[in-house]
Amino acid sequence: MKILISNDDGVYAPGLAALAKELASIGEVLVVAPDRNRSGASNSLTLDRPLEAFRHENGFIGINGTPTDCVHLGSSGIFGMKPDIVVSGINAGPNLGDDVIYSGTVAAAMEGRHLRLPAVAISSGNFHPEHYDSAAKVAREMVEKILQLNVAPRTVLNINVPDRAYDDLEGVHVTRLGHRSCADMPIEAEDPRGKVRYWIAGAGPAAEAGPGTDFYALDQGYVSITPLHVDMTQYSGMDNVADWLESSF
Amino acid sequence: MKILISNDDGVYAPGLAALAKELASIGEVLVVAPDRNRSGASNSLTLDRPLEAFRHENGFIGINGTPTDCVHLGSSGIFGMKPDIVVSGINAGPNLGDDVIYSGTVAAAMEGRHLRLPAVAISSGNFHPEHYDSAAKVAREMVEKILQLNVAPRTVLNINVPDRAYDDLEGVHVTRLGHRSCADMPIEAEDPRGKVRYWIAGAGPAAEAGPGTDFYALDQGYVSITPLHVDMTQYSGMDNVADWLESSF
Amino acid sequence: MKILISNDDGVYAPGLAALAKELASIGEVLVVAPDRNRSGASNSLTLDRPLEAFRHENGFIGINGTPTDCVHLGSSGIFGMKPDIVVSGINAGPNLGDDVIYSGTVAAAMEGRHLRLPAVAISSGNFHPEHYDSAAKVAREMVEKILQLNVAPRTVLNINVPDRAYDDLEGVHVTRLGHRSCADMPIEAEDPRGKVRYWIAGAGPAAEAGPGTDFYALDQGYVSITPLHVDMTQYSGMDNVADWLESSF
Amino acid sequence: MKILISNDDGVYAPGLAALAKELASIGEVLVVAPDRNRSGASNSLTLDRPLEAFRHENGFIGINGTPTDCVHLGSSGIFGMKPDIVVSGINAGPNLGDDVIYSGTVAAAMEGRHLRLPAVAISSGNFHPEHYDSAAKVAREMVEKILQLNVAPRTVLNINVPDRAYDDLEGVHVTRLGHRSCADMPIEAEDPRGKVRYWIAGAGPAAEAGPGTDFYALDQGYVSITPLHVDMTQYSGMDNVADWLESSF
Repeated sequence: MKILISNDDGVYAPGLAALAKELASIGEVLVVAPDRNRSGASNSLTLDRPLEAFRHENGFIGINGTPTDCVHLGSSGIFGMKPDIVVSGINAGPNLGDDVIYSGTVAAAMEGRHLRLPAVAISSGNFHPEHYDSAAKVAREMVEKILQLNVAPRTVLNINVPDRAYDDLEGVHVTRLGHRSCADMPIEAEDPRGKVRYWIAGAGPAAEAGPGTDFYALDQGYVSITPLHVDMTQYSGMDNVADWLESSF
Repeated sequence: MKILISNDDGVYAPGLAALAKELASIGEVLVVAPDRNRSGASNSLTLDRPLEAFRHENGFIGINGTPTDCVHLGSSGIFGMKPDIVVSGINAGPNLGDDVIYSGTVAAAMEGRHLRLPAVAISSGNFHPEHYDSAAKVAREMVEKILQLNVAPRTVLNINVPDRAYDDLEGVHVTRLGHRSCADMPIEAEDPRGKVRYWIAGAGPAAEAGPGTDFYALDQGYVSITPLHVDMTQYSGMDNVADWLESSF
Repeated sequence: MKILISNDDGVYAPGLAALAKELASIGEVLVVAPDRNRSGASNSLTLDRPLEAFRHENGFIGINGTPTDCVHLGSSGIFGMKPDIVVSGINAGPNLGDDVIYSGTVAAAMEGRHLRLPAVAISSGNFHPEHYDSAAKVAREMVEKILQLNVAPRTVLNINVPDRAYDDLEGVHVTRLGHRSCADMPIEAEDPRGKVRYWIAGAGPAAEAGPGTDFYALDQGYVSITPLHVDMTQYSGMDNVADWLESSF
Repeated sequence: MKILISNDDGVYAPGLAALAKELASIGEVLVVAPDRNRSGASNSLTLDRPLEAFRHENGFIGINGTPTDCVHLGSSGIFGMKPDIVVSGINAGPNLGDDVIYSGTVAAAMEGRHLRLPAVAISSGNFHPEHYDSAAKVAREMVEKILQLNVAPRTVLNINVPDRAYDDLEGVHVTRLGHRSCADMPIEAEDPRGKVRYWIAGAGPAAEAGPGTDFYALDQGYVSITPLHVDMTQYSGMDNVADWLESSF
């Protein structure tokens, strides 16, 4: 199996190295990742400049672009491999509920939607993970079995792994995304030259995090797997909109 | 009605001005947009620096950030208005099918998902529009009627308008997103100092663009309205993944 | 006279507009400036991407690059004018002593060193100027007379103007650059996600600011003019280094 | 001796590693360098955001900023060392004549002007150096002897080393900066979406490169050392400007 690995924490991130090392035991790996931390990059593409690729001593390729750029370039074959699958991570911190909208980790996986196999995004439940090896092992097991997975094309598996020893994981739950509340108010900060600036505040707290959600599974010590689709059409809303058009115009 | 307006083409874009002018006739408008073109920004958030707001002579506020940053800041109330709705556009060029994953226009609308009313993203079918006024008028009509729209919370209406005179529009179709093929190969370019760099190529051609899709409606001269949802859970795939877990592990 | 105007405060800065308006009365002007605030840009050039030019309604051209990029492009003739001189400013805030090393305003002027006439950088003594018109008038007078100025090629006139009514200016002094002390310590700031970051602190206080310096003249209410050269060779140190090489090696 | 090392080619550049390794034999070294290639950064400072420091496995600290930012932070003591001297390099490619205006390598050295010892910038004559060890050895020798160098404070030694085996170096010349011609015309390039963009062209050819200049010494196989000063005042021009003011106004 030919595996393209990327992330959004950057080419130096320990979670990337842990993932690449583990997956190298089951396939040929190509690592293409942003040259720096690009958390929050979502599916952004760099359109205003051509990108540069730098091959590090460990063979990892750093790109001065976004996670999506990396997978876009990496899956095209220009680095000498045509991958079967994309695995993205291991992110330092969970990607739950509304996080997936902003996540570069999930976006990197999503950019592999045209490949033969479902894409995988894998995140640790802890912002300062101590057990990357657990998440790496989970990733490896999933990828090993994924040929048997019967899902629609363009599916992404969004996996969150509790930050604990592998043997202490409670099991695996298939979940839906929960929801977060609106984020906190922007945080005003004056710079040293007296100009007012605004930080984007942290993600809001979970607003819908009951049983069945990814929040709940992770919180209970389970590996959470949420199948995501790339088609954002709200089929259930199409009739309502059609009715509205008829009646209002 | 209090209307927050943003875009991804930047605070100077003529499509933004056209939209703001038209919507000012039906509500109180606040315009908060990126200080430069951020096409392709998707839902990216700026997390590595605090943002700066600059109020231009026309009252528009430019932010040195992404479309999502702009709506995030603009909907928080720090600029003196708590909006009821976000309208994003008018984008110079369509946002169809897979485009919505990367689009900053759609992302700006999506960031308004916590507001009282469904968000609206509006794009012209032409990359060099000649009829912003048509799209602006369509936007105004939609917003005027949107109080009657009965859809789930967190819905975004993705609207594409043919670039023709208003009276020449064929009508309105409610559509699903089509799909694009994989994008073309990255384009290699040597810079003037001899370094090889790679441009992200243009979007792939439409691969699924038959009747019922946004591609088709726009192509036939209709305004296309696609209701989008923000929940990326693939509910239909949850059982398959659960079966897979049981049988493979 | 064909005058290229730029700055480092960005294309929408009021000091740029004031300067352009005043100089339009004595020559043909072309305004090419960064699309956003690039204070502190020094002589940096953008080498990792090609630049984009956007012509605003007022005819000013915004570039997604540095002040040096702007003058580099603007003096090449690609925008339809081959300038005789570059005038940069009016900067919001003085450029004194060590400031000129970091200043984008001075750098923009310096990039005009290959043109026929000496370049001019002009700054207001106040970070929030109330009298751009005074500085603009000083700039115009200097440019009107500059054909008579007999200085070496590649000279830049660095002009600082007190922020007061034109009639209240005490006169004009030719000065040398003073010196600033080392800047303050970097300022530690935790971002909303708990990461430690460091702001570059404000410029250090003047350390050598006695009579004859630019600091002193401005402080006393005089327009300060410091001729700068672009050749950084320390001729006076060449013998010392030669002696050192002989004796030490 | 406590040595702060930086560069503008980025924290992973082989020239940086070669320099750090060699200087570690004669002092305590602290390496603080940009997280990516920042060639052409000149003395630019990052003022619109706080900077992040990342300690790599080899102890090098990467900063998401400019070379000047790096030395500014690194010389402040926040990373646990108060350096006596800054050494910047080894740059991949020469820094000759007008190059020093734009060079991040020279700028990094210049930012060490407040330290106890003269700063050193060191560059290889070749853009793809094969003999970093030669340049590193030259750097070490210079730093070892620099306590004996009797030059004015705020002096920078700009050193260019031919890319050849150490034993094949012809010797050392103290030089003045030559001059380059105006750079070539900007290079127009259409991006894949049809937008016209402009690359800054390569540096112009040497225009004044005769005996005594840095260009000449390097070309003849000598190590070139040019003492630079940080004071840009053109003392020789002060009288001319004063005469001009008297006669013209």
